[in-house]
Amino acid sequence: MDMIWIVPVVGIATVLFAAGLAWNVLKRDSGTPEMQRIAGMIFEGAMAFLRRQYQTIAMLSVVTAVVVGLIVGYFDESARTGVLTGIAFMIGAICSAIAGFIGMYVAVKSNGRCASAATRSLRDAVAVSLRGGAVSGFLVVALSLLGVATLFAVYSRLLGNTMEETPFLIVGFGFGASFVALFAQLGGGIYTKAADVGADLVGKVEAGIPEDDPRNAAVIADLVGDNVGDCAGRGADLFESTAAENIGAMILGVAIFQFTGNSNWILFPLVIRAFGLIATGIGVMSVPFFTREKQDPMTPLNYGYYVITCLSIAFMALVTKLMMGDNWHWFFFCGLVGIATSVVFVYITQYYTAGRWRPVKEIVEASRTGPATNIIIGTAVGFETTLVTALAIGTALIVSFILGEHSNLPNGGVFGTAVATMGMLMSAAYILSMDTFGPITDNANGIIEMAGAPAEARDITDSLDAVGNTTKALTKGYAMASAGLAAFLLFSAFLDKVKEHFAQDESSIYFGKPLQEIPFPVDISGVAPFVAALMGVMLVFLFSSLAIRAVGQAASKIIEEVRRQFREDPGIMAGTSRPDYGRAVDITARAALRGMMAPGLLVVGAPVVIGVAFRLLYKAELLKPTALQASVGSGGPEAVAALLMVGTIGGVILATFFNNVGGAWDNAKKYIEAGLLKVPTADGGEEVLGKGSDAHKAAVVGDTVGDPFKDTAGPSLHVLVKLLSTVTLVLAPLFIS
Amino acid sequence: MDMIWIVPVVGIATVLFAAGLAWNVLKRDSGTPEMQRIAGMIFEGAMAFLRRQYQTIAMLSVVTAVVVGLIVGYFDESARTGVLTGIAFMIGAICSAIAGFIGMYVAVKSNGRCASAATRSLRDAVAVSLRGGAVSGFLVVALSLLGVATLFAVYSRLLGNTMEETPFLIVGFGFGASFVALFAQLGGGIYTKAADVGADLVGKVEAGIPEDDPRNAAVIADLVGDNVGDCAGRGADLFESTAAENIGAMILGVAIFQFTGNSNWILFPLVIRAFGLIATGIGVMSVPFFTREKQDPMTPLNYGYYVITCLSIAFMALVTKLMMGDNWHWFFFCGLVGIATSVVFVYITQYYTAGRWRPVKEIVEASRTGPATNIIIGTAVGFETTLVTALAIGTALIVSFILGEHSNLPNGGVFGTAVATMGMLMSAAYILSMDTFGPITDNANGIIEMAGAPAEARDITDSLDAVGNTTKALTKGYAMASAGLAAFLLFSAFLDKVKEHFAQDESSIYFGKPLQEIPFPVDISGVAPFVAALMGVMLVFLFSSLAIRAVGQAASKIIEEVRRQFREDPGIMAGTSRPDYGRAVDITARAALRGMMAPGLLVVGAPVVIGVAFRLLYKAELLKPTALQASVGSGGPEAVAALLMVGTIGGVILATFFNNVGGAWDNAKKYIEAGLLKVPTADGGEEVLGKGSDAHKAAVVGDTVGDPFKDTAGPSLHVLVKLLSTVTLVLAPLFIS
Repeated sequence: MDMIWIVPVVGIATVLFAAGLAWNVLKRDSGTPEMQRIAGMIFEGAMAFLRRQYQTIAMLSVVTAVVVGLIVGYFDESARTGVLTGIAFMIGAICSAIAGFIGMYVAVKSNGRCASAATRSLRDAVAVSLRGGAVSGFLVVALSLLGVATLFAVYSRLLGNTMEETPFLIVGFGFGASFVALFAQLGGGIYTKAADVGADLVGKVEAGIPEDDPRNAAVIADLVGDNVGDCAGRGADLFESTAAENIGAMILGVAIFQFTGNSNWILFPLVIRAFGLIATGIGVMSVPFFTREKQDPMTPLNYGYYVITCLSIAFMALVTKLMMGDNWHWFFFCGLVGIATSVVFVYITQYYTAGRWRPVKEIVEASRTGPATNIIIGTAVGFETTLVTALAIGTALIVSFILGEHSNLPNGGVFGTAVATMGMLMSAAYILSMDTFGPITDNANGIIEMAGAPAEARDITDSLDAVGNTTKALTKGYAMASAGLAAFLLFSAFLDKVKEHFAQDESSIYFGKPLQEIPFPVDISGVAPFVAALMGVMLVFLFSSLAIRAVGQAASKIIEEVRRQFREDPGIMAGTSRPDYGRAVDITARAALRGMMAPGLLVVGAPVVIGVAFRLLYKAELLKPTALQASVGSGGPEAVAALLMVGTIGGVILATFFNNVGGAWDNAKKYIEAGLLKVPTADGGEEVLGKGSDAHKAAVVGDTVGDPFKDTAGPSLHVLVKLLSTVTLVLAPLFIS
Repeated sequence: MDMIWIVPVVGIATVLFAAGLAWNVLKRDSGTPEMQRIAGMIFEGAMAFLRRQYQTIAMLSVVTAVVVGLIVGYFDESARTGVLTGIAFMIGAICSAIAGFIGMYVAVKSNGRCASAATRSLRDAVAVSLRGGAVSGFLVVALSLLGVATLFAVYSRLLGNTMEETPFLIVGFGFGASFVALFAQLGGGIYTKAADVGADLVGKVEAGIPEDDPRNAAVIADLVGDNVGDCAGRGADLFESTAAENIGAMILGVAIFQFTGNSNWILFPLVIRAFGLIATGIGVMSVPFFTREKQDPMTPLNYGYYVITCLSIAFMALVTKLMMGDNWHWFFFCGLVGIATSVVFVYITQYYTAGRWRPVKEIVEASRTGPATNIIIGTAVGFETTLVTALAIGTALIVSFILGEHSNLPNGGVFGTAVATMGMLMSAAYILSMDTFGPITDNANGIIEMAGAPAEARDITDSLDAVGNTTKALTKGYAMASAGLAAFLLFSAFLDKVKEHFAQDESSIYFGKPLQEIPFPVDISGVAPFVAALMGVMLVFLFSSLAIRAVGQAASKIIEEVRRQFREDPGIMAGTSRPDYGRAVDITARAALRGMMAPGLLVVGAPVVIGVAFRLLYKAELLKPTALQASVGSGGPEAVAALLMVGTIGGVILATFFNNVGGAWDNAKKYIEAGLLKVPTADGGEEVLGKGSDAHKAAVVGDTVGDPFKDTAGPSLHVLVKLLSTVTLVLAPLFIS
């Protein structure tokens, strides 16, 4: 059954829905003049950064698009392919930038309105922040879907490429999107954590003034950071996740299309994504029905998520049944595996990062003997979280592969893992909405503090802020797991592409069969793939090193600036004159832009350099191809494939560590601040070790260390993992010819 | 030319040489009665721990030997093979235990004598500590060589196994050695760092008394820890490195032997190791000639190392020329690559961990803004060190592989990497001597402090202690790099063994050739090997989590005990009564023994469980073998091979991080303590931020965090990497049949 019409319909409807949400938020009361003034400063700072960041990224993107187009055109011996790939890259980059921009625009317009709503009621405040967040969530997913679908339609129907060729041609879209995402996430992540760490160290620790105190010159930069990091950065991250995963799944569908002649296998990813948007839309609209005054704001959000999960299961059954013929049930089960994985990750993240359970309590206990034991035990807890993460991802891959294999279709197993990934990502728009909820409430909280609003309003935004922390942690777990699943699908697509190349030569017989019919091998028993794999894991560590160091360096610049302002104008501390917020914002922006360059270029350049270096070693006959390599006429693509695959594994594991340890340290600090750490005293009573105690100071150190881990390195690694795949996929001709 | 006679001659001569050194040290003056009393307590504590630890390890070893024998016997369908493997395992375990025991015995007897010598002259003190350390260094390497050679002789000549079979039968020796090494390194590593962290936190930080102050109840446990961790633990580590690497290289030689009919290819590893011992012996004896009074004690040690390097090059040329016929020069170049790699690592480690260069200075600078930035920048530096490490290991592997390939012998490339590893390990005995030098001088330093010896003696041991820190860092870099090289050789041996199995079936035709002639592939493009690889990296993180947590937990037990003693007997702090050192020693020992069990059993058990699980998935036909797997009749060994190879990569990278970041944090603290951190003051002058400053306190936090990283998790990972190889190699029948 031809269901592709549903894609543009749902895509456009979603954009209109997002516009309606934005309109609903923007028409609301924007608070007292003081609130408007502060919100205005945040708005200006965020926009100024985004403008400069996008200028840099635009320049880099244009250069990269041209280079990529030239490489693909030259090595694939087709100028047309090169041009189409370069154009796809630019469109992907532009769509990603638009999604990030609009989402952040609405978020920075919502924060003041959320603060104002909080002076009235919790219900109002939740409505503003959730709707503001949902604009970003829905736009990101809808634009990614429309972008891929439009490009597919244009490249196949208008430009007359075949159904088989087109998915390979639009891979550039995914590369462009992940290219922008990498720099957006890196720049935003460095900005937000440098401002956060700098403001905390110089304000809370040195000057002894509270968080968000208007006397701290870095406080506006800190509030701006939440937006550019969590809204713009994470939005770009999930935009490219959904785009890359769509295209990868379409490429995998090509093999089944060639066998069955049914184009549904290529179009399925787009259709199921459209249904995911419908489920998510209904879920978001259901949230107000579950909201009661004086309730934990997490509860209605959870109900909304359950609604989406149930609808996703139903839609998955419907779409597989209508599109996949006799074998639909195997792939429906694969989709179930993906949906279940997404639920599992919600619980794993909560267990490891919420104060109720053993891991955070262990860190709290260790804080009693100082910052060193807090860090030691925190590291142990963070490393431990890789166990369940790896088991969950591994199980999802194996089970969905086995289920897919039972369809007896070529590539069925790998396509099964793709369907699982799609099942997992059906709720992406909702998760992203909840993520953007975080910075909006965080900002609202800051605005209320700075504007001196009444304590009741502060209580409301405080409770929303705590929920925002949980939803931010969930998003990272979710983004990580989906990156892990998507990566397997993406490098399977790369191997298909490599095979595609060698199989053009009809003499490529391999195990007595044409190469077309069997998977392309990546044999790491050879020295070149093994060393490339070593480089892959190293690359992940080096990238993290650069990202973390950038935060440290930028933070120290901010600290110097705030110290200078305190020193040169004693009126600031006395409260008689205002600090120069703008200078701090400007310094942070410049440091973040400088800091994002090295790690970003490293990740794009390293696979190319290493892949080409190994290819040249083979071409110079210094490395002889093994029997296996010789049989497929190659020696080269295996090395870059090994780098990609093993680098991905390293990235997934390290990102898991970063995200979870950061969340656990953060919540250990909050646990102590909430006065929950009690120790028996000599006289048989109990003493609360709360804010200001030595244990609290130790926990603050852990929290600060965790900041660049969980908000800069971790999220950037998600993008890295997918960028590695898209860069090798697009530049495959370079490693083959 | 038959040179095998040189192996027993050199082996026995080396044992006698070590005995002579031991006698020379033991006959010396053991100092004042107070020194003797303190040294006696350290001796008793160390011996008591080793006794209990060896009891536990012995029990575990017997059970494992029986289980391994049964598994190999049953699945290989040969009771004889099972029994011989089990016996080899036990002999390996016993030899490793003996080497560790004697080395540590001499070290704990040398510390008091070194303290006593320091009251006379630097020259004397260096002589005692270096000779004491050399006993351990030479015994470890000689026993490993004699063990492998004797077992080879007995199994081949007496029991009549062929030259081809024997290397595979004595693999159990390597497994036994790595089994003991794992628990020795883990238990010793947890002991030493728990005592160190506990004593520092409760003494220096809480009570404000200096390091090694006799009022601290944990001070003896701390001194004991240096011996059981650095002497016994590292000794077992390098024992199994040399053993496993010898056997692995012999297995790789089998393929060339089958082609050339010349058994030299199997015996070469033993002969070159013997020549390495000769070079090292001459090097150690040359050190006194370079020693001058009032000189940096590192200088003569460096000259000794240069002597060994030159001799190694000459011997490598001699032995390859005599044993390898026409192709000798290719393998000589491979050996050169290995020797060069060892020199490179000496410099890399110094660059990243010594105060003179950028990395440590960066951490020092970050300490000015507190412990959080110290940890953040330290982590960035630590991650960065993986770059040069991976490049150096990768380059050594590729270059030696290419050189070996040029010999045009079957397996020549892989054998080339084996020769490089052997070149690198020629200086093992010297490196290990320098490593054991560390705890001896550290202990001497503590004894002098506690015995209240004159300040000049303290100056001498202080300078020796600083050298000891450098040599300890060097050993870790060296052990890591050799583990990385050895691992490639070991899993190549595993793949040879797997191939051996499938090639028995003459119908195994593969790419139109008998399997015998081509390498066995490990194709990670399949879902099972990919997930197994994911598990491999996770395993490394989980193991580190358990090891680090064990240190944290044991340290908190020690802190509680010392606090209790301070509380219950105020006379301790006043200096009127002695603390109960014995109880602190006992508590540490019990905590270390408990802590070593979980990570130890995890590493032995996990590859077996995962390997068997995947094998069963194939047997149950839930996973279908790919065309590639089907062609070699398998589906199973690839998964465990992927776990092994990618886990190894993860282990090498993570251990590099742990070792270097720990060393850098340690030396950043020392840099500040030495008064080298100067900041400009407002009046244009300079202020020294030294001991007691906030920057120093921040650096102490980093140093403490680094302790379990560099002395527990890092060194244990070296063993893990090789244990993964030996356990899969020995239990290969389980994953095949």
